[in-house]
Amino acid sequence: MALGSEFDIIRRYFAPLSEAAPGAYGLGNDAAVWRPADGCEAVITTDCMVAGVHFLPDDPPATVAAKLLAVNLSDLAAMGAKPAVYTIATAWPKDMDENWIAAFASGLAQAQAAAGVTLVGGDTVSTPGPMVLTLTAIGEVRSRMALPRGGAKVGDDVYVSGTIGDAALGLRVLRGELTPSDKTVGGYLIGRYRLPTARSTLGAGLAGLATAAIDVSDGLVQDLGHIARESGVNIVIDRDDIPLSVALKSALDGNQTLWDSVFAGGDDYELAFSAPPKAKDAILELANSSGTKATRIGIVGEASSGGPEVRVFDADRQIVPVGRQGYRHF
Amino acid sequence: MALGSEFDIIRRYFAPLSEAAPGAYGLGNDAAVWRPADGCEAVITTDCMVAGVHFLPDDPPATVAAKLLAVNLSDLAAMGAKPAVYTIATAWPKDMDENWIAAFASGLAQAQAAAGVTLVGGDTVSTPGPMVLTLTAIGEVRSRMALPRGGAKVGDDVYVSGTIGDAALGLRVLRGELTPSDKTVGGYLIGRYRLPTARSTLGAGLAGLATAAIDVSDGLVQDLGHIARESGVNIVIDRDDIPLSVALKSALDGNQTLWDSVFAGGDDYELAFSAPPKAKDAILELANSSGTKATRIGIVGEASSGGPEVRVFDADRQIVPVGRQGYRHF
Repeated sequence: MALGSEFDIIRRYFAPLSEAAPGAYGLGNDAAVWRPADGCEAVITTDCMVAGVHFLPDDPPATVAAKLLAVNLSDLAAMGAKPAVYTIATAWPKDMDENWIAAFASGLAQAQAAAGVTLVGGDTVSTPGPMVLTLTAIGEVRSRMALPRGGAKVGDDVYVSGTIGDAALGLRVLRGELTPSDKTVGGYLIGRYRLPTARSTLGAGLAGLATAAIDVSDGLVQDLGHIARESGVNIVIDRDDIPLSVALKSALDGNQTLWDSVFAGGDDYELAFSAPPKAKDAILELANSSGTKATRIGIVGEASSGGPEVRVFDADRQIVPVGRQGYRHF
Repeated sequence: MALGSEFDIIRRYFAPLSEAAPGAYGLGNDAAVWRPADGCEAVITTDCMVAGVHFLPDDPPATVAAKLLAVNLSDLAAMGAKPAVYTIATAWPKDMDENWIAAFASGLAQAQAAAGVTLVGGDTVSTPGPMVLTLTAIGEVRSRMALPRGGAKVGDDVYVSGTIGDAALGLRVLRGELTPSDKTVGGYLIGRYRLPTARSTLGAGLAGLATAAIDVSDGLVQDLGHIARESGVNIVIDRDDIPLSVALKSALDGNQTLWDSVFAGGDDYELAFSAPPKAKDAILELANSSGTKATRIGIVGEASSGGPEVRVFDADRQIVPVGRQGYRHF
């Protein structure tokens, strides 16, 4: 199917996604109107994905849409914000198949319904290069309750949601670098890479409970490093307390070097956060009611004399070398 | 200069642009916090520009930055909103020269200072294709006062700000399709193409005065057509009342086919709006105090039996054929 005009594409595929927001004017105005609830502030984030860099060109369009939304909602969750509305800017290649766009919009519709958010605006342009997708998500948080990165205190506990490392292993399976003996394992890991789940309910509930939070997008150690540096503290992790999926454990059994994906793999979009010990019961209850596991993996300590850092220990209290601390997209 | 890491680029060039907004956390958080003033709603718009499509690869980086901001602020102005904060997502080619980025950020700093807005977030990625720049601007408008496209009433006057057609002619000069005998004329027109001015003060003042508004980005007739259709009315324009720059008039003298650029040329980023006759004095006073000319160019009438449309008349009350009603970027 040939690509229709910009107006046709918007009217046909994207305008229906704006119906729940009167302030979106059916995408037929210069801009959208929206306001945070009384007593709340707006929280704003923007993430950009490029075909061949942040997703694979043959990834299913519906999962590309869902991931684009999820990575933004994950940033809002890390601020303690409840997501509300979003805009999307799409730069499509000129030879774009309209079926791809239809499937993308359909995936976006499903993802926004699951997340309880509404499209309110955007832009559609064409590019001679690969597809570039940019999404800006806006949420709300009670005034002055947004979770900072710099609020971790010595003595706080450190938690993560869900399980860590799956997405990075899923990418390695997709790239053919890893072939799990069990197909279910590979499928699970790929699913975690392609379809991360923003921890929105957990994140919104953490406003007022957690002292600092971040989402794990660049790798656990690197992202905790941001909290450590911004807070001027050390973060000390017990390796064996890091929550791992059954699939990842089974892959680890055959190849201990895969620990690298746990420490430095990105794209999990789980939340990592600190909270005082007295908040423990409330956090576990919140996690339970959010349907998201939260696991205590370490504590906040005084910064090292050389400056704040993240340290990982094994069961014998030996420091674990965590390899590269940065994560590069493929 | 080789391109530094994403973190370096953000810290060096973009973080300084966020200093005026404490809720931006120096771009060192997952998202930014901002709230509209009491009694106001947020107004949100997103525009995307692709190198080679929306700007020329050899355009000066500072003017690319200023234009990217201006086209978004123009959308806010068309809603009657005062601009406040923005995010920017940049997809840079891998061989990007860091000097280009430095000049781009410097132009953005100058443009945001002139507009009174602050960078609060964004994303920096690399792309194997041409540069793609996406900006989301957020402003505020008194609750329920945002200017719609569908509010024009029969009997309203129709106005435009500034002068019309300059940017489209400027692009033709840049592309070598038009060579004005006077170099000053060419320079002026190119400047209007490269550096549009968002009519922010005029736009914010129109909230409560105008009944409908739009910014002229796709061409005067097409954009007024949006107001006509959304409002269910005709818009009747006197060609000879359309405000033209001295430069454009001098080009028209030699080539009457250039009227096409007045009717259908885009990229002017002037405001077109309707208002009741009783608002005339207030509008002219507002325009005067905003330092922006506003010119009455026509009236709103009953929709034609075939549906709402835009009609242009000459001094002899003859209908002027307005050629293609759409404007395509090059």
